[in-house]
Amino acid sequence: MARPEPFVVLLLHCPLRLGLAADLTHFVYNQGGRILSHEQYVDPQIRHYYTRLAWDITEVKMTDGETAKRLKELIGEDEDTEWALHHSDTVPRMAIFVSKEPWCLYDLLARTGSGEWKVEVPVIVGNHPDLESVASRFGVEFRGFSVMKENSEDVEAEQLSLLDGKRIDFIVLARYMQILSPRFVAAYPNRIINIHHAFLPAFPGARPYHSARERGVKMIGATSHYVTEILDAGPIIEQDALRVSHRQSVEDLIRFGRDLEKVVLSRAVGSHIAHKIIVHRGRTIVFD
Amino acid sequence: MARPEPFVVLLLHCPLRLGLAADLTHFVYNQGGRILSHEQYVDPQIRHYYTRLAWDITEVKMTDGETAKRLKELIGEDEDTEWALHHSDTVPRMAIFVSKEPWCLYDLLARTGSGEWKVEVPVIVGNHPDLESVASRFGVEFRGFSVMKENSEDVEAEQLSLLDGKRIDFIVLARYMQILSPRFVAAYPNRIINIHHAFLPAFPGARPYHSARERGVKMIGATSHYVTEILDAGPIIEQDALRVSHRQSVEDLIRFGRDLEKVVLSRAVGSHIAHKIIVHRGRTIVFD
Amino acid sequence: MARPEPFVVLLLHCPLRLGLAADLTHFVYNQGGRILSHEQYVDPQIRHYYTRLAWDITEVKMTDGETAKRLKELIGEDEDTEWALHHSDTVPRMAIFVSKEPWCLYDLLARTGSGEWKVEVPVIVGNHPDLESVASRFGVEFRGFSVMKENSEDVEAEQLSLLDGKRIDFIVLARYMQILSPRFVAAYPNRIINIHHAFLPAFPGARPYHSARERGVKMIGATSHYVTEILDAGPIIEQDALRVSHRQSVEDLIRFGRDLEKVVLSRAVGSHIAHKIIVHRGRTIVFD
Amino acid sequence: MARPEPFVVLLLHCPLRLGLAADLTHFVYNQGGRILSHEQYVDPQIRHYYTRLAWDITEVKMTDGETAKRLKELIGEDEDTEWALHHSDTVPRMAIFVSKEPWCLYDLLARTGSGEWKVEVPVIVGNHPDLESVASRFGVEFRGFSVMKENSEDVEAEQLSLLDGKRIDFIVLARYMQILSPRFVAAYPNRIINIHHAFLPAFPGARPYHSARERGVKMIGATSHYVTEILDAGPIIEQDALRVSHRQSVEDLIRFGRDLEKVVLSRAVGSHIAHKIIVHRGRTIVFD
Repeated sequence: MARPEPFVVLLLHCPLRLGLAADLTHFVYNQGGRILSHEQYVDPQIRHYYTRLAWDITEVKMTDGETAKRLKELIGEDEDTEWALHHSDTVPRMAIFVSKEPWCLYDLLARTGSGEWKVEVPVIVGNHPDLESVASRFGVEFRGFSVMKENSEDVEAEQLSLLDGKRIDFIVLARYMQILSPRFVAAYPNRIINIHHAFLPAFPGARPYHSARERGVKMIGATSHYVTEILDAGPIIEQDALRVSHRQSVEDLIRFGRDLEKVVLSRAVGSHIAHKIIVHRGRTIVFD
Repeated sequence: MARPEPFVVLLLHCPLRLGLAADLTHFVYNQGGRILSHEQYVDPQIRHYYTRLAWDITEVKMTDGETAKRLKELIGEDEDTEWALHHSDTVPRMAIFVSKEPWCLYDLLARTGSGEWKVEVPVIVGNHPDLESVASRFGVEFRGFSVMKENSEDVEAEQLSLLDGKRIDFIVLARYMQILSPRFVAAYPNRIINIHHAFLPAFPGARPYHSARERGVKMIGATSHYVTEILDAGPIIEQDALRVSHRQSVEDLIRFGRDLEKVVLSRAVGSHIAHKIIVHRGRTIVFD
Repeated sequence: MARPEPFVVLLLHCPLRLGLAADLTHFVYNQGGRILSHEQYVDPQIRHYYTRLAWDITEVKMTDGETAKRLKELIGEDEDTEWALHHSDTVPRMAIFVSKEPWCLYDLLARTGSGEWKVEVPVIVGNHPDLESVASRFGVEFRGFSVMKENSEDVEAEQLSLLDGKRIDFIVLARYMQILSPRFVAAYPNRIINIHHAFLPAFPGARPYHSARERGVKMIGATSHYVTEILDAGPIIEQDALRVSHRQSVEDLIRFGRDLEKVVLSRAVGSHIAHKIIVHRGRTIVFD
Repeated sequence: MARPEPFVVLLLHCPLRLGLAADLTHFVYNQGGRILSHEQYVDPQIRHYYTRLAWDITEVKMTDGETAKRLKELIGEDEDTEWALHHSDTVPRMAIFVSKEPWCLYDLLARTGSGEWKVEVPVIVGNHPDLESVASRFGVEFRGFSVMKENSEDVEAEQLSLLDGKRIDFIVLARYMQILSPRFVAAYPNRIINIHHAFLPAFPGARPYHSARERGVKMIGATSHYVTEILDAGPIIEQDALRVSHRQSVEDLIRFGRDLEKVVLSRAVGSHIAHKIIVHRGRTIVFD
């Protein structure tokens, strides 16, 4: 297969400023870049601008460093301005954390294994040994940690060191049934993606399907979100829901929920890998 | 149009008992009844039986009173057994309570006005005069009440007396922005249907669309439920949800939400009118 | 209620041209206009640009004629370029065509009657007298036409003359069970909106719910589209679908379908009224 | 893990007969069986009865042969009656046919590999070698066949012999891009499950996502069905659909469609494995 053309993605949000969009597209054009996509959103209430601009750099002579320098001038500095430039040659490195439930892990590995996503998976971390065989099926290193109340600080320190050694960019909690400490979360701000098996903010915490059955809801849901210090309260990336009825037992809800969970988690991970998500003021902007 | 054939509906729940279903169908058959539909559900966890049995009584010689007497013998008595027999000639009488938002009221009146539902609407109660013109458009009596903290007890007493005088069977709160007292609720147990503009148990209480936008959810929902003493905690009858994104403002959510609200409320009301809902242990069984 | 601020909406599509978006926003800014929303889409395959730009003209001194003239210079001319400028003071005039089914008509009239849409309904046209009473309920003129094979040309001529006299801008076929001639369609290009009670291109033509039941599909749908010469083949504006099962009879499908039909039709009509739809090469671009 | 209790499933359809349901449940009870679930459906139009009855046979002394003999007496014979008894100890044997697209194969193997389904996969058949590595990842035998117009009859004969040798019960076409001959289909009546990447009957045949984009639909779908002689016309088991817009390219539709395809296929396969599907008159009854 021919090597795909190299491209860069600019992900930016800043206070709305007339002409900035034109300045950005002219800059790309003047460099010799070919715009692949340009998505924009303005929040009219707070007059804030969000954009994702991708361009082919085959014909671009400028180095990435020069490009970044020029963008810095164009965009300017401001406490409510953030941007990043991502090069298609830089493949993100994802760690997957698991406990005993296999479905989300299988779905993630199938997508990486089949080339659907351009991502590396250097390590799978488990707090139970159950899924080591799944990891080995896909040839991915598995690292087991036995976590208890007494040793949880030490374990997290070890895990952080492991992730650091593997140069991990972001972490996916694929039904990882362990709460991360604020210190751990702070090491990967907006870079830990969790799947919660309920339609947040309904049914946070443990055993949401049991609570859903107990409450008699007529739909169940799943929510993927970035992890923050507060449990199940981070910025929501993706949600979906499914009709159920009185006929479904808790076991049925768990079974039906699996497909929701894996699809909702994988959509979020796919958007993260493709640099389509901006987090601002506790909410996400997810470009199509 | 020819008068439709008369039929009765038995709505029953009781502890599971072998042979009861056969006894019921044989009873109908022996009377000369023609079974129109027979829906059954067994909750295997609590071994409880729920059924809705409808039969054409054109050829039945037995009076309703005799039928009820025989059913009583067949079904037996038990503290966890409840049943009711509904005759197609008895048209339920529905009161609608409204405030200022018209969309649910219009939808309910369009369905009654077009004959989609077999129901009478003797009165619309409003705590604001805004929707009187809608009521008069459909030729339905409108009764306005000015409710304030000081007079709420008196107003409820007047309303109960009004409903009693109109022989109201059940009440629909069509975006009625007033909390009913436990005394009022107790007068119509499992016979007051409310629409809440959120996916309960997420976002109970006031201004759920604002909360949804604030939280950054990716779907909005609506919930219809029977009203109990505890706000927004009654048995859920129907729910639905709709995908939204960062692009939608609170105003957009309110606009999109209208269609959800009216459809979710009307589905619940339609099921109630057709005697398809059983309430048991805080949950509903809603037959198709 | 205070008069809302006046605004204009530009709806434009043209071959992609660098800097056009900036030229448009600068033009608005230089006039003193305040941009309310700016939606853009580029089809990367055909390099075509689609945009909807709305701005508040409270502080704008330029007349609409001058604005149009300046836009003409900015945008230029091209056989694949089309644009229109809509002023918020110009209220569109909608005719509704009906047969016997009331639900879509009720839904349209409820939205116009409650002020949800800014639209005039000068006339309802029926090929059966059944819905005259609904029209009169909402105080709208009803004009009945008895259409037969022999007189259909004459009837259409009369209808066109009626619509012309009422200065109708667009027509909604709210379950109008009569096929319009090419001549009629040509008089209102991309200005006749139909609802088809199936998920097109599945089940075009008559009795789609019967066909759906016959085929054993597990979902039913509804499609709103602009009418073209070819039956049920015009540009699709909106679609939605609903899960069903073997348990639903044809009558159930018809009943469940009603809510789909009215919501799908009304979403399309709402987008048309708000000038959010561009038709290009047989497809629609519908801005949020 | 303790061995789960053995149970049997009766799947039956026959002309409606008063008392049959009671006879069946009494028969189970008299044997000492414990009913686990009992789902019933009557099609009122054709007065036909469909049921799935599952019971725990831990305490049952009767052999399966005796049970079958007694059921035969109870149910009787009729040209429109069909039934089968499935024992939980008999694990169905599934062959998977693939071409080049991996997502459905991965999803099927993840479910079998994780024990979500009780099924054996003795062989994967490919008409391209591309997915051999996926098969070997899960330790499943892969058999490649190079199919051309000239040799297709011979290849099918070889495949049938292979399937026969492996004692295959049913076949899943997991994006197998080859049309099976009537002879092949006849060897596995209602036992070949296909996934079509469109909302049938819309867009049968090749390249449905291209057709969907071309037609400008606002939702895409997927359909799983039993294969019959006529292409894409067999009894539908499961369907689902997803909203799309003008913003999605064909490539986006293909990408979004993957998740639909695998979920819709796997739901069908799961229902087949659990003996929840009855095919009658070209349609399916799928119990929950």
